[in-house]
Amino acid sequence: MAESTVPETTRELADFVVRTQYDDLPDIVRREGARTFVNWAGCALGGCQHEAVDIALAMTAEFAGEKHATVLGRGRLLDAVNATFINCLASSAHAFDDTHLATVTHPTGPVAAALLALAERQRITGPDFLTALVLGIEVECRLSKALLVPPARGQVGWYITGVTGGIGAAVGAAKALQLDVQHTIWALGIAAAQAGGFRQTHATMCTGFVPAHAARCGMQAALLAARGFTCSDAIIEGPKGFAEVFADAAHLEAATEHLGHTWETLANTYKPYPCGIVIHPTLDACLQLVHTSAPDPAHIARVRLQVDPLCLTLCDRPAPTGHQEAQVSVQHWTAAALLHRAAGIAQGTDACVRDPQVIALRQRVEATPDETVGRDGAITRLDLHDGTVLEQRVEHCIGSLDRPMTNNELEGKFLGQAVEVLPEANARHLMALCWRLPELDNVAEIAAHAFV
Amino acid sequence: MAESTVPETTRELADFVVRTQYDDLPDIVRREGARTFVNWAGCALGGCQHEAVDIALAMTAEFAGEKHATVLGRGRLLDAVNATFINCLASSAHAFDDTHLATVTHPTGPVAAALLALAERQRITGPDFLTALVLGIEVECRLSKALLVPPARGQVGWYITGVTGGIGAAVGAAKALQLDVQHTIWALGIAAAQAGGFRQTHATMCTGFVPAHAARCGMQAALLAARGFTCSDAIIEGPKGFAEVFADAAHLEAATEHLGHTWETLANTYKPYPCGIVIHPTLDACLQLVHTSAPDPAHIARVRLQVDPLCLTLCDRPAPTGHQEAQVSVQHWTAAALLHRAAGIAQGTDACVRDPQVIALRQRVEATPDETVGRDGAITRLDLHDGTVLEQRVEHCIGSLDRPMTNNELEGKFLGQAVEVLPEANARHLMALCWRLPELDNVAEIAAHAFV
Repeated sequence: MAESTVPETTRELADFVVRTQYDDLPDIVRREGARTFVNWAGCALGGCQHEAVDIALAMTAEFAGEKHATVLGRGRLLDAVNATFINCLASSAHAFDDTHLATVTHPTGPVAAALLALAERQRITGPDFLTALVLGIEVECRLSKALLVPPARGQVGWYITGVTGGIGAAVGAAKALQLDVQHTIWALGIAAAQAGGFRQTHATMCTGFVPAHAARCGMQAALLAARGFTCSDAIIEGPKGFAEVFADAAHLEAATEHLGHTWETLANTYKPYPCGIVIHPTLDACLQLVHTSAPDPAHIARVRLQVDPLCLTLCDRPAPTGHQEAQVSVQHWTAAALLHRAAGIAQGTDACVRDPQVIALRQRVEATPDETVGRDGAITRLDLHDGTVLEQRVEHCIGSLDRPMTNNELEGKFLGQAVEVLPEANARHLMALCWRLPELDNVAEIAAHAFV
Repeated sequence: MAESTVPETTRELADFVVRTQYDDLPDIVRREGARTFVNWAGCALGGCQHEAVDIALAMTAEFAGEKHATVLGRGRLLDAVNATFINCLASSAHAFDDTHLATVTHPTGPVAAALLALAERQRITGPDFLTALVLGIEVECRLSKALLVPPARGQVGWYITGVTGGIGAAVGAAKALQLDVQHTIWALGIAAAQAGGFRQTHATMCTGFVPAHAARCGMQAALLAARGFTCSDAIIEGPKGFAEVFADAAHLEAATEHLGHTWETLANTYKPYPCGIVIHPTLDACLQLVHTSAPDPAHIARVRLQVDPLCLTLCDRPAPTGHQEAQVSVQHWTAAALLHRAAGIAQGTDACVRDPQVIALRQRVEATPDETVGRDGAITRLDLHDGTVLEQRVEHCIGSLDRPMTNNELEGKFLGQAVEVLPEANARHLMALCWRLPELDNVAEIAAHAFV
């Protein structure tokens, strides 16, 4: 049969997950694992009052079990499976979470949400949590690469975090549950059988729903597998399996080559601004102009942007009507950043999107595609009424692989979101706990400090 | 943008669902709706003690809400969302459920499971239930056709009930919840964003899990949409939507042409035997030989089958090792039917699959592809040790569109499964209630009589 000619990708991945221990993780991977967790926890707090979360929480409460698990920023409200769903919904709601640039996967949400909920169900130490988190991200991003990185030709319509995020969550949870290889294979398989979601959902509440649902599916997969629920042993590579349906010419080697030697966690990035990542170079340029030249917005006649063509493919929305559309509008964020001298969650609200001043400046923004600025670059020019032209070029924006966010910047991002739902002292204490993830004796401590 | 050139499939379907009432259903559609419900309820009872159900029930219980909803055959054990999942898992577990032959969708499970659970949450009359059931099946099967019927080229790997079953459940639940067009569009969209599942799961517990998960996803979609959770208005036809990702050249017209004039419920069929449908003509022939000639199995030297080539593509498994593999083994079912003179759930158990007598006869089965026998046909020849050859040809097997199962046969199928978990009098009373579906004042009565 055809199976004998293809690699045993599913088993290789499960083997790797089962045998890899905290001691096998390079220091730099451990540090990046803590950084992505800090970033994630902040985003979960930042999104916990989003209306999508309110609706989902109200719906879910009726069908949830005992309240052993925490919704970050809100309280101990749900069982572990439903908390997994809601926390990932919150962390995805503002599109402020992390990005694996090679595949545009947002890897941490599904894995971290599942693991944190599990940690309230059974004791998980910091090192074990971090190991499971890094392994979940690893398998998730590698499978994304197998579908998307040439020669593979995945369809652009798939929302890749929905396709691989549940598998990441399942693998992470399987590791934390200490499943053996066979049960990890089943967990991975049951999760893969629930993979899906596509980009037509963008700019609606389902933008956050797709990763959140993936998180829940992955958690459920690990819990079912732990009890002996079976699935195929070749779910990834089998002739009617994951790789076959989700891509033309899937590149299975990307899933397994250099396992244990290269780490996708190191290819993950964090966003300084809660909007489409292709908008970020422009925002860097705008905020640099604001800080160096402090132009009076009333004096701006025209804003000319030169952006990478992909920015316009994904984020050319000159007249967004609400916050969901604005998330992917380069025009909105440019105007809001110049007016408010900031680009945070407040600049993405309906109030800001519908502010007449913002609208007036937004109408004066002209964006032009320019292949020479680079994927991480942009040029912003302000034409003032007096004829002055202020220009700022950015080569590598904050949050790119060439200019990663510093720990200080991550702290600012965390606190900016956390203080919306926690007193500042509590927010700082929680942040310190998150940084101390690799040393914690019981990660449930983090959840216990994530609400008042 | 490209959207303006494509039809508004999502809105047309939602419009149709919202405006169609019981009075609009032709009598023949109402009758078939009742028949498919009787068939489904019997299968849910028949599968309710399957080990996959045991495991899923044990896992789910920890994460379930108040016990307002019934697991058929077992009791009032779960909330409505989790009961939806488990009842569809049970009805799919033995692959004994219904088949929409044009697409090999098993349409009723996800829709009926969601509706029955809803009926225990709010009063739903028989006519309203039947209308919602028929509409859910309609949208589900039409979307399957849009992906699979030429000129569309859907990938064979997709497990189509996983892809469209959740949408059917969402649409049915939206109708029962009396959602308006906008909210029905969102329900359909949220369900589509959860669509997935592939055939690599076959012959494992995930065979039943994929439809069951779809059922739960659809129910969840309708409940979220009812509370205002948004999704795209063009989830089916949008450029990064359902049709684009799930098929090359999806045939969107199949989803909407003749809406309200043709009914997919009439293209649905019921299985007389709990195994791959392509095995059925051979089983008809075997059982006819058993009843007319009563050959002593000990005298059979060789069994020669002529079968449609698709039977061997899907079900050529000469040496299955357990019940999951045996479900798709033409050799196993031939031997078991000839020995046991029956082809029911007992012939699909591990005990039967591993019975030395069955194995011995199975090894004497030779199956040959023959394009002349037809998709519903088969020829079985028994070579006896004394040189006698017994031959039986079947043109249209029981359960095909040309020879549908009669109401009497459906009753036999229902009772054969129900008496395994209910006293016979209770089983007969429940069956009578199911037949009376179109007249019931409150469908919850059915659930209340489905356990002891």
